[in-house]
Amino acid sequence: MTDVILVINCGSSSIKAAAYAVEERPAPVWKGNITGIGSAPVYRALSGTAAGERMALATDMTTHRSLIHWMLERLGQEMPSLRVVAAGHRVVHGGRHFDAPALIDDTVLETIQGLSDLAPGHQPHNLSGIHAIAEAWPEIPQVACFDTAFHRTQPRVAQLFALPRHFADEGVLRYGFHGLSYEYIASVLPRHAGSQANGRFIVAHLGNGASLCAMQEGRSVATTMGFTALDGLMMGKRCGDLDPGVIMHLLRDRGMSVDEVYHLIRRESGLLGVSGISNDMRDLLESDDPRAQEAIELFVHRIVSQLGALVAQLGGLDGLVFTAGIGERSAPIRERIAARLAWLGVRLDPAANAEGASCISTTDSALPVFVIPTDEEGVIAAHTRTLACATPRAQRREREALACS
Amino acid sequence: MTDVILVINCGSSSIKAAAYAVEERPAPVWKGNITGIGSAPVYRALSGTAAGERMALATDMTTHRSLIHWMLERLGQEMPSLRVVAAGHRVVHGGRHFDAPALIDDTVLETIQGLSDLAPGHQPHNLSGIHAIAEAWPEIPQVACFDTAFHRTQPRVAQLFALPRHFADEGVLRYGFHGLSYEYIASVLPRHAGSQANGRFIVAHLGNGASLCAMQEGRSVATTMGFTALDGLMMGKRCGDLDPGVIMHLLRDRGMSVDEVYHLIRRESGLLGVSGISNDMRDLLESDDPRAQEAIELFVHRIVSQLGALVAQLGGLDGLVFTAGIGERSAPIRERIAARLAWLGVRLDPAANAEGASCISTTDSALPVFVIPTDEEGVIAAHTRTLACATPRAQRREREALACS
Repeated sequence: MTDVILVINCGSSSIKAAAYAVEERPAPVWKGNITGIGSAPVYRALSGTAAGERMALATDMTTHRSLIHWMLERLGQEMPSLRVVAAGHRVVHGGRHFDAPALIDDTVLETIQGLSDLAPGHQPHNLSGIHAIAEAWPEIPQVACFDTAFHRTQPRVAQLFALPRHFADEGVLRYGFHGLSYEYIASVLPRHAGSQANGRFIVAHLGNGASLCAMQEGRSVATTMGFTALDGLMMGKRCGDLDPGVIMHLLRDRGMSVDEVYHLIRRESGLLGVSGISNDMRDLLESDDPRAQEAIELFVHRIVSQLGALVAQLGGLDGLVFTAGIGERSAPIRERIAARLAWLGVRLDPAANAEGASCISTTDSALPVFVIPTDEEGVIAAHTRTLACATPRAQRREREALACS
Repeated sequence: MTDVILVINCGSSSIKAAAYAVEERPAPVWKGNITGIGSAPVYRALSGTAAGERMALATDMTTHRSLIHWMLERLGQEMPSLRVVAAGHRVVHGGRHFDAPALIDDTVLETIQGLSDLAPGHQPHNLSGIHAIAEAWPEIPQVACFDTAFHRTQPRVAQLFALPRHFADEGVLRYGFHGLSYEYIASVLPRHAGSQANGRFIVAHLGNGASLCAMQEGRSVATTMGFTALDGLMMGKRCGDLDPGVIMHLLRDRGMSVDEVYHLIRRESGLLGVSGISNDMRDLLESDDPRAQEAIELFVHRIVSQLGALVAQLGGLDGLVFTAGIGERSAPIRERIAARLAWLGVRLDPAANAEGASCISTTDSALPVFVIPTDEEGVIAAHTRTLACATPRAQRREREALACS
C-alpha cells in the first residue's frame, strides 16, 4: 500500500482531485476530474492506471457531495494500492482570519462556514468536499488551504475600499484570490530568477478567471481582484472593473433586478459579452470577426493598464511571470501584452515565446519574463503534508532519536 | 455699455456665474456664486463693484431656475453697465454625440435633455440654467460646453466596459468628466512646458471631485472617471473604484436598498467615509487622528496606483500637472504623491512646491511637474465667444472688407 494525500479542489461546476504520495514526490500518482456538474457530468481519469478514460455520469448526480463519494469509490477501483491518510482542500475564502492553511477542526470548520456569504458561489462547494471526506474516512486529518491567505501580507491601503470605515471592520475588504497559484509561483521563482526572485515581480494568472499579483520578496503587495473574484481584469465571463455608477444605472434607470445584474456581470460579460462569440480565448484568437478582435484588444488593454497600476505600487518592476491557461499556453496574448510594455524595457524573444520556453525575454530585455505552469494542487498537497502528516513522522523521528540516545 | 458673455456653471447645490467682456480679455468683469442650494442658500459677489459682499437668501428659493433669475437681477443692480449678449453653460453630459461645444437650438436642447438619465444629479440643473437665460433674454444665443466632449478622442478600448456589447451600443461607455478643466490645461500647457506639451502628460484634477487624464499631443487618451463621476479616484464623498461584487453583497446579503447603496457610494464614502471626520482635505491634513491619516494615505495610494495605469496606457510619461482645489493648493498632498513617483524619476523642489510655483520639479527631475490653476469658466467663455459672438463679428469684418474693396 502507498499512503497518499488526497487533494480536492471544488469549483462551481467541477471537481478536480489528485493523490500525492506522502513521501515527498512532486508529481501526483493519480489525478481525476469531474466537469459539467449540474448539466451533464463527465468523469475523466487524467493519470493513474485508468489514465485517458472518460465516463458520462448519471445526470441525477447533481451535488458535489454525491459526486465526490462516487469519485472516491472510483479511485479505490482504479488504484487499489493507495491508502488515503490525509486530505487537503482548496477553500476560496479565508476572510481576515486565515493568513495560512489550517488543520480542520470544529472551530475551523465553523469559521469557514461563516465566510460562505463572502463567496456564495464557491465556499459551499468547498465545504461539501470537506464533509464528503469526513463521511468516507472520519479518522483522517484534513487541511484547508485558502485562496485569500497569500494576500494577507498586503499593506492596509491595498486592502481598503473608500467606503465608510465600519464596512472594513465588518470584513468588506480587498481580499484577493488565486493565492495558491501565486504562492506556488513565489515558491519556484528562485529556480527561474535566482536572487532576482526577491525583487519586484508581477505574476499574471490568466485563466478563465484572471488576476495580477504584485510581489516583493515573494510576498503579495497588491492584487487586482478585490472583495470578490468579479473585480479587476476582464475575464472569460466576468466584467472585472466596473464603474459602480453603471450598476446603479442598470438597477435604477433600466429596471433590472439585482439578480439579473448579478447574472449579467458574472456569466454574460467579459470575453463572452464583448465578443458575443465565446468566453474561450482560443476561439477568439482563431476568429477573424472584428468583435472577437475587439474583445482580445480590451482584454490586453485591461491587463496592461492594471499592470501599470501594480508597477506604481511596487515602485518599479524587476520581472514578470505568466501563468494559468492563457498565460501558459497563449503565445499571441503574451506577445501583445509584452509589446505594450516596451516602456518598461520588456523585450520578448519571439522564438522562445512561440515555444513557451521558461524564459521568453531576450538577454537585453530590461527585465526577465517567465512562463511558469502553476500547480495549485501541488501547493495544497505540500501544506497538507506539513500540517497533517509531518507531525506523526516528526514524532516518530523524535522517538527513534530518543531510543538511540 | 460693455457687451458681456455670461457663463453659468450649475452644480448640484451651487451656481457659479461669471461675466466676460466679448472683446477678448481673459479675466471676468464680474463673478458671483450661490452655494447651499436646498438648505441655506448664500450669494457671494466675488468680483465686480460689490466684490466681497455676502448675502443669505430666502430659504424658500430652492430651485436653480429661481435662483438664477434672482442672480441675473442682482447682476443688473451691481453692474448696470453690462449688457449680456450671449450665455455659455457647463453641461455635464454630452453623451457620444457631442465631441465639441454646441450652439443651442431646439435639437441640441432635446439631445441634452435626452442625456439626463446619464447624469441625473447634474444634467437637470444644467438645463435649468439654459431655461432661465432663455426666459430672461429670449433673443441671445446660448452655448453648451460638455464635460465629456474632451475625452471623445480616446481609443475605443479606453471607452469600453467588459459588458455584453449591446450596452456599448446603447451608450453605456466610459465617458469621462472634468473635460473643460483638462481642455483648459491642454490649451495653456505649451506656455509652461514648451514643445514638451505635445508629449505624454498626466493631469491630476484633484478637487472635491477628482480624476486623472492621460494626454498625448494635448488630446485625451484615457481618464479615470467612467460612465459616471463615481468611478476612479477616491473623492470627498464618492467611493471611486469599487468591486462590483461589493455592491452585490450590500444588496443581496445585507438587504440594503438600491437607494441606500446609491446614497452610500455618492454621499457617505471617500475621504468622509474612511476618516469618519470630514470630506475636506484641509480638515484631514490638520488632524492627528489616525483615521484622518489613513484616509489621506488611501487617497494618495489610489492616485499613485491609477496614475501608473495611465502611464502604462501612454507607454511612458513626459510630464505631470496638478490642478483644481487640492491639486493647486495642497503642497503636502503633491509632495506625498511625488514621493511615490520616484520610480519615474520625479523629483520635487520642496521650496517651489511649498510656495505653489508653476513648476515644482527640480532641474534634474526626469520629467517636469507643474501646478496650473484650472479655469473651466474661461474655457466656456472662449467657446461661447467663438460659437455665438465670432460669427457676427466675422461677418461684420467681412462686410467691412467688402466695402473697402
